[in-house]
Amino acid sequence: MPTIAEIISIGDELLYGQTLDTNAHWISGQLDLIGIKVKRRITIGDVEEEILSAFEEAEKRADIVLITGGLGPTNDDLTKPLLAKYFNVGFKLNASALDEITKLFESKGREITEPNRKQAELPENCTKLTNKMGTAPGMWFEERNTIFVSMPGVPYEMQEIMTSEVLPRLSEKFFSGIIIHKIIRTVGIPESTLAEKLIDWESNLPYPIRLAYLPSMGQVKLRLTAIGEDKKRLEDLVQEQVALAIPLIEKYVYGFDSDELEKVVGDMLLKSNKSIAFAESCTGGYLSHMVTSVPGSSAYFKGSIVSYDYDVKVNSLQVNKVEMEEKGAVSEEVVLQMAKAVRKHLNSDIGISISGIAGPGGGTEEKPVGTVWIAYADGEKTVAKKFNFSKDRILNIKFSALAALNMFRINFSSN
Amino acid sequence: MPTIAEIISIGDELLYGQTLDTNAHWISGQLDLIGIKVKRRITIGDVEEEILSAFEEAEKRADIVLITGGLGPTNDDLTKPLLAKYFNVGFKLNASALDEITKLFESKGREITEPNRKQAELPENCTKLTNKMGTAPGMWFEERNTIFVSMPGVPYEMQEIMTSEVLPRLSEKFFSGIIIHKIIRTVGIPESTLAEKLIDWESNLPYPIRLAYLPSMGQVKLRLTAIGEDKKRLEDLVQEQVALAIPLIEKYVYGFDSDELEKVVGDMLLKSNKSIAFAESCTGGYLSHMVTSVPGSSAYFKGSIVSYDYDVKVNSLQVNKVEMEEKGAVSEEVVLQMAKAVRKHLNSDIGISISGIAGPGGGTEEKPVGTVWIAYADGEKTVAKKFNFSKDRILNIKFSALAALNMFRINFSSN
Repeated sequence: MPTIAEIISIGDELLYGQTLDTNAHWISGQLDLIGIKVKRRITIGDVEEEILSAFEEAEKRADIVLITGGLGPTNDDLTKPLLAKYFNVGFKLNASALDEITKLFESKGREITEPNRKQAELPENCTKLTNKMGTAPGMWFEERNTIFVSMPGVPYEMQEIMTSEVLPRLSEKFFSGIIIHKIIRTVGIPESTLAEKLIDWESNLPYPIRLAYLPSMGQVKLRLTAIGEDKKRLEDLVQEQVALAIPLIEKYVYGFDSDELEKVVGDMLLKSNKSIAFAESCTGGYLSHMVTSVPGSSAYFKGSIVSYDYDVKVNSLQVNKVEMEEKGAVSEEVVLQMAKAVRKHLNSDIGISISGIAGPGGGTEEKPVGTVWIAYADGEKTVAKKFNFSKDRILNIKFSALAALNMFRINFSSN
Repeated sequence: MPTIAEIISIGDELLYGQTLDTNAHWISGQLDLIGIKVKRRITIGDVEEEILSAFEEAEKRADIVLITGGLGPTNDDLTKPLLAKYFNVGFKLNASALDEITKLFESKGREITEPNRKQAELPENCTKLTNKMGTAPGMWFEERNTIFVSMPGVPYEMQEIMTSEVLPRLSEKFFSGIIIHKIIRTVGIPESTLAEKLIDWESNLPYPIRLAYLPSMGQVKLRLTAIGEDKKRLEDLVQEQVALAIPLIEKYVYGFDSDELEKVVGDMLLKSNKSIAFAESCTGGYLSHMVTSVPGSSAYFKGSIVSYDYDVKVNSLQVNKVEMEEKGAVSEEVVLQMAKAVRKHLNSDIGISISGIAGPGGGTEEKPVGTVWIAYADGEKTVAKKFNFSKDRILNIKFSALAALNMFRINFSSN
């Protein structure tokens, strides 16, 4: 019998359609990785009887109940008092929690407030879970057969508490078998085309390997899972199948497991001691943001010129005005000039440029919304490519940045 | 008594953390607009007993049960057979559904397949709901006190069926009253401090106004809700309370309802016909991305220089090398130079600059990770401010960009 979990998300704002609950989704994925099965998720509002009855029902069905939300310092936050009521216990000031909250305030040069001090008062029967990111501590209740865990609803706070405090405890307590996951990461190929290329391989996957396609924007991840007792055997089995799959889809594979494309690109640059700079038009800085979200990117990222305005293209990038007027800012000629210019001006080994029509306005019959030119220049090689993405502004921005990173991956050679 | 709805989302892929369920969220928002209260949402897998027990429990609690998912043509889709089983009825070919499915295939130049033909067989006791976007018809069951509605899980199919078929029926049947929502948006003040400033106001809120604090990264939204019969009276009541609250928190309020801060900033620039440019260091392009995610931002956004590298600060922004060596790149002096320089180089009315230590590396005792300087320059006024954010790289990037927009909001004057 697998260990069964239920997730309870609490908050009126979730039920009014105001806030999209991504917490339950994230938690589900994390529990799946350690073999804990989420059988049910429940979302309820800040209403006493609803919350108490959800606790009661979940306790009957599950080994673990994970609760998010309702831990703020204001009066509409009911989770903590209701957990105390549910377990029929009083409150106690948790000295370590108070210390953590006080330090958090000190680090921001502020004094702790009374509502925040009260956040350190916890139900007597719980173990405090440290919240490094905020003022509401997590709580762990283990006095009955079902474990209750309460965490704040702010996603990054919850994720930190899950990662540092909850998952290690759950893993130790419930997970005895071995689960092997291997993720193959692809970019630049749609899910259905990928599935077609892999159809024979997939139908011959041996027991106990399971395959899942995990599509996300512009990328598809293939997750192989094997559950059993013998770690070495499972790892070998998975590795064998990965080795069979790769040649079928080689040029789309950019990494494995948790490798993000921007991290892979950064590692390629680091390894060959090369630097990069961008000239971004329609992506408006998003490509630079992706690359600089990787810690340590200052070792290879020189900077960017976000040339949104026509004049910035002419003055800061010295794009030829006549050519831009003739061919338009979204053209092979201009994007090539931009890549070469940013490489020169910011003194980098590689220059990448993007110019396109993100929309909703600005499209023409010849160049509709979603038309994007991307160029790569490294001093020896210069490549430009045209893409036709979507009608949606935000999607076009994100697809373009991803395609630019992929163009680097394909064209960069470390020599 | 308000009309009560429950939403049941069905699908294994939701519980593994594979697919993020946005359907329940979207449905909640739509029902809220016609005064139907979602009291609970449940997510379960493709498991017969789970599905049947969810139907049974929901029927006891709710007037309306909305179900998404499990209507595909494959064998793991259980919703339709289980609805028939639940109501104890057989299947009947629905001629109109068959016609619609056949036409959908014809429009794509394809012949209808056998599994798709079977999708036109519906439980005898249901009303078919036309699905213009796909092959799985929606179903409406009204023979008991609780209405059951079943829809496909593909978001755009579900949304189309909700909009054309379900919401008009529900609206006619259940909605007579009026709901008024008003959201006050704040930035630069933590939830607890905001709550302290509003404590007296909050405790004097008259019936039937309810208040909710909705915190998200660096921002807190205050939502006032009033339900009743007399629209004018409710609107006046809410407006009165908003007018009382604003003076208590005025400098933190940047907008109302769906106004995003980057949109508010853009509108301020548009209205006064002024342009802006950024010099970003630690935010690496994220501030530019925020501003350019707003459609039409090319009217006021000139561009940015992302000066990650030391030399880019010196060459492209002409920051004084001696001063930078003396004071460090993260200093009042350098950030002021950057704001003035980008304003000049990109020929904009306003320049904003950010220089800080995003982390995880690069911190010192004097300037720990999270130290960020932001400057604003408009030709007459020049302001710089130091912030201490967090230990987390991504949070520091996002907090900094938000603080920069807020600094613009506070310092910009349209004259």
